[in-house]
Amino acid sequence: MNETTSMLTEHQIEIRVRYNETDSMGFVHHANYFTYFELGRTELLRASGGNYRRMEESGLLVVVVKASCKYQRPAKYDDLLTIKTKITRITAAKIEHEYQVFRGDEQLAQAQVTLAVVNRAGAVQRVPEWMAALVAQPTD
Amino acid sequence: MNETTSMLTEHQIEIRVRYNETDSMGFVHHANYFTYFELGRTELLRASGGNYRRMEESGLLVVVVKASCKYQRPAKYDDLLTIKTKITRITAAKIEHEYQVFRGDEQLAQAQVTLAVVNRAGAVQRVPEWMAALVAQPTD
Amino acid sequence: MNETTSMLTEHQIEIRVRYNETDSMGFVHHANYFTYFELGRTELLRASGGNYRRMEESGLLVVVVKASCKYQRPAKYDDLLTIKTKITRITAAKIEHEYQVFRGDEQLAQAQVTLAVVNRAGAVQRVPEWMAALVAQPTD
Amino acid sequence: MNETTSMLTEHQIEIRVRYNETDSMGFVHHANYFTYFELGRTELLRASGGNYRRMEESGLLVVVVKASCKYQRPAKYDDLLTIKTKITRITAAKIEHEYQVFRGDEQLAQAQVTLAVVNRAGAVQRVPEWMAALVAQPTD
Repeated sequence: MNETTSMLTEHQIEIRVRYNETDSMGFVHHANYFTYFELGRTELLRASGGNYRRMEESGLLVVVVKASCKYQRPAKYDDLLTIKTKITRITAAKIEHEYQVFRGDEQLAQAQVTLAVVNRAGAVQRVPEWMAALVAQPTD
Repeated sequence: MNETTSMLTEHQIEIRVRYNETDSMGFVHHANYFTYFELGRTELLRASGGNYRRMEESGLLVVVVKASCKYQRPAKYDDLLTIKTKITRITAAKIEHEYQVFRGDEQLAQAQVTLAVVNRAGAVQRVPEWMAALVAQPTD
Repeated sequence: MNETTSMLTEHQIEIRVRYNETDSMGFVHHANYFTYFELGRTELLRASGGNYRRMEESGLLVVVVKASCKYQRPAKYDDLLTIKTKITRITAAKIEHEYQVFRGDEQLAQAQVTLAVVNRAGAVQRVPEWMAALVAQPTD
Repeated sequence: MNETTSMLTEHQIEIRVRYNETDSMGFVHHANYFTYFELGRTELLRASGGNYRRMEESGLLVVVVKASCKYQRPAKYDDLLTIKTKITRITAAKIEHEYQVFRGDEQLAQAQVTLAVVNRAGAVQRVPEWMAALVAQPTD
């Protein structure tokens, strides 16, 4: 992959809340937001011409080493949510993202997730060059 | 594994319904029953001295080729459910199980699942001898 | 709702397999197909001008009373799947759907799901008129 | 409920990793840890004589307002995990828990979750007296 010049540092997707993602309270279960964020960063990478699946096939696994979320308002079944994903920092060891969840103009949640890259044996690897190169870029 | 003589053909486990397994209706989402059945057959195998994880480590994967469930009454958060698992047929190609879900005396669901054994490349394998031997056994 | 004339009896959607829907085998876990089918019928209803959420808000809950699936080939992370949904029968008591899952031209699974309509107290209700009217329609 | 004297501030449970909780990497998907923590605090409350289900039936819902987790080592299918739950702070508005996940002696993750109490309309409620009373207690 040679995405240095085209890699995006921000992206947004829309997600429709599925029935099985809700719980007895009638709200999206809090754990499911982390799967929404994963979709957010997957699609950011795809929009940049990259692909997690191909990274995995080449032997690089991306693991979550830290994740946190503040829940401000509940989401419900069938809500159309906007997930905004932003790369905030990339070092040789880590990739940090920020996320915001909106329903229309209303913000429902905000989050941070830190990723690391490991090989199949679990040994930490350098973040690929084309990702690391991004820190030098303006993030407009 | 040499479980021919000790392999059980029936087993039951108790499961406490988790919050995230419920949906907006306040009931356990129907897809989650299939994960309960998987726990039922896993624990049947463990109670017989076997272990799915070790089977996998030896290169044999157990895949579901058919699954069906009749839902009679809904289960709710925090219900203590009994999952009864029974091996009904084993051939060289397939393993069939029946399941019943109870809350106390009340039956909530019944199901059938058919498994096959494949290798890492996805090619169908013979059901291991020690499993196939069970069909010759009295099942009570 | 007055969808008698516009209600579709067939519909198809595309779904991208999410990372959390896969399991250690590297395949989509079999239980997750049932959530795909639920999306299929939800979008069929939406494409017809209906909406499950509004049905629920009016006090009618749609519950699964029977579900079965034959798994032919495994799906993997990031696969783009086509879910074809077809209403096969509607009576005063039940709605039956058939589903097919494709990855490109390759069929991965086929399934049937039977729904019933209940009120908040769990009592079985007649399937709404506008749904029942569909049986009289050609299903081209 | 009158659990002031008997309420525990620490508790531990064992959880067996389920097949559907793993992902293509062969590890427990990171989002699932938050459901483990929920089980931890549910069982802490039950061990103290309380019950979330009864709280809900009385109209009080417990919602997660903040959650964070550091993932140190991956968990795998069939691992037997110990989830240690500790109440670290209770105010009129919030309940804070800390969690640690162990596999034998090896620590896999640590986390914090902050809860608030709301009514069915979503309005924030005071944390019940019997819970708030705990802050005055030694937490040994």
